[in-house]
Amino acid sequence: MSELTPLNAIGEFALINRLQAGLTLRQPGSVLGIGDDAAIIRPTAGTELVMTTDLLVEGIHFDLSFCPLRHLGYKAVAVNVSDVAAMNALPTQLVVALSVGPRFTVEAVEELYAGLRLACEAYNVDLVGGDTTASRGGLTLAITVLGEAPTGKAVRRSGGKPTDLLCVSGDLGGAFLGLQVLEREKQAFMADPETQPELANYEYVVQRQLRPEARLDIVHELRELGVHPTSMIDVSDGLASEVLHLCAASGTGARVFSEFLPLANPTLEAAAEFNLDPITCALNGGEDYELLFTVPVTDHEKIKNHPDITILGHLTGKEEGTNLITKAGQPVPLKAQGWTSF
Amino acid sequence: MSELTPLNAIGEFALINRLQAGLTLRQPGSVLGIGDDAAIIRPTAGTELVMTTDLLVEGIHFDLSFCPLRHLGYKAVAVNVSDVAAMNALPTQLVVALSVGPRFTVEAVEELYAGLRLACEAYNVDLVGGDTTASRGGLTLAITVLGEAPTGKAVRRSGGKPTDLLCVSGDLGGAFLGLQVLEREKQAFMADPETQPELANYEYVVQRQLRPEARLDIVHELRELGVHPTSMIDVSDGLASEVLHLCAASGTGARVFSEFLPLANPTLEAAAEFNLDPITCALNGGEDYELLFTVPVTDHEKIKNHPDITILGHLTGKEEGTNLITKAGQPVPLKAQGWTSF
Repeated sequence: MSELTPLNAIGEFALINRLQAGLTLRQPGSVLGIGDDAAIIRPTAGTELVMTTDLLVEGIHFDLSFCPLRHLGYKAVAVNVSDVAAMNALPTQLVVALSVGPRFTVEAVEELYAGLRLACEAYNVDLVGGDTTASRGGLTLAITVLGEAPTGKAVRRSGGKPTDLLCVSGDLGGAFLGLQVLEREKQAFMADPETQPELANYEYVVQRQLRPEARLDIVHELRELGVHPTSMIDVSDGLASEVLHLCAASGTGARVFSEFLPLANPTLEAAAEFNLDPITCALNGGEDYELLFTVPVTDHEKIKNHPDITILGHLTGKEEGTNLITKAGQPVPLKAQGWTSF
Repeated sequence: MSELTPLNAIGEFALINRLQAGLTLRQPGSVLGIGDDAAIIRPTAGTELVMTTDLLVEGIHFDLSFCPLRHLGYKAVAVNVSDVAAMNALPTQLVVALSVGPRFTVEAVEELYAGLRLACEAYNVDLVGGDTTASRGGLTLAITVLGEAPTGKAVRRSGGKPTDLLCVSGDLGGAFLGLQVLEREKQAFMADPETQPELANYEYVVQRQLRPEARLDIVHELRELGVHPTSMIDVSDGLASEVLHLCAASGTGARVFSEFLPLANPTLEAAAEFNLDPITCALNGGEDYELLFTVPVTDHEKIKNHPDITILGHLTGKEEGTNLITKAGQPVPLKAQGWTSF
């Protein structure tokens, strides 16, 4: 086993040099990357930019006892890129602000950066700047991403209209159940350190938790289908919370049919094992990073057969409220029980 | 005295609503600010962007026992804007990622935001996005700023040529001496909490430490003078460290004349009182946030009478090294004793 290097053994500038060694610039607009007071970026003609920042804090958003640093780096990029996708935009550049406590080594930070690099490759985004400093406590990671959309084509939360179809990509609730599995195995490990975690049967849900993907594929596919969403948001805090945000911004109500909620088999199995209602997991679980969006009802033909898009229901007038429609046809007001860090 | 509100009493969304209440958008390019998955920005035609991020961590970069939250907010923006200025660019938008531990109240976060808003007004930059979360420890603040420069006119560290004049704005060493004063008063207060801090005689250096200003005025004035710097960097870690960075990037050496180092009278007085060499404070003190830049020697006439720009010396061939020239005419190699957080 190779030796580990304390961060104070090499200093900030040498660390930055090591971290930037593996970085390449792919975007034609990335004129200058890491190494100056700021990056230089030339936006593509005819586009407008989107910009978003997200912070991940150890002990609040992640637990390094079961989240490998490489996965954390990947996820930190994915959750930011997901916000860019939710604007119907494609990511181009990002910067990383990282603070790490004294227990972290150079190798640990390099592992985190390996995850950042992998995600940058996967999403075709350039890491063009960063700030890396010490902290008194744990690890904090703030990423800011820039993206581009054709001018006037960025999609807000506020453009939904009554009768628009309400759609979601992928499936829901898996990330929350993955977290339940990981926390159970952590408890078992803490009670008996000889225990090997039993994750083989839970690969799908654990993957959903530890390594979510931003749905840039959906952004590309909607463009190919000629579908321009009227409103969009990513599902980070649970479907119920996001439907409420979207309806509040659009000034509408919504009808979400519980029987249409997309639930993967491994999610259903894990929910049964944990004695949890899978519909509740989908509505309030969070961290699925799917895209929730609305399209005009006239686009129904274009999307109804898409294997990875589900029509959940439709928007209504505001006065009808924001309801889950049960299998029995009963409306139940949606409530945001989404996650809050405070 | 009004009551203080714990953060968990109002939750993340209500907090964000309160924080964004006082924000206005001034930049024509700010199409959409806080409240969606991302901000929307329309870059000015004919410009390229610069982007930079900086992280301030409690206990590492600031001490809330003597740094008021409002000043911290202002400084956090100023140090980022300083990086934009160092590219010869003007700031346009920024996003703020903030994590705060359980001892902070809603009112404390609002006070921090008041400082952010003041700085946004002062530098004509729009706060267009943010993420605010809990932490297990103290306060961490990451700001990412976008700026604009006419295409091809952003100035890097790497464009300096031998014979170029090496110039610096303002004066040096004050922020470091301000920190010495503040730390001395903190020790006195901890020894005897009845002590009132004696800061009246140190107003200038304390201000340099607690409320530095980014030198956007210099960027504007150089444009007005028709001077285009060949290289530029901001002085955050001490002059010596920055001269070395600039020379390394430009592939040059430099001669910096110690007698030309700009030292304000309050800095000289405080240095004498603390028995510190003011030249050492200027070279290695850090946090002055002045601009260090080079101009062709043919621009000498244009800048020689500028009241707030000092010509420190000039660049040389790399083989001559990077030297401080003492009053006696002796070259002494510059060493980076700049601050590192690790």
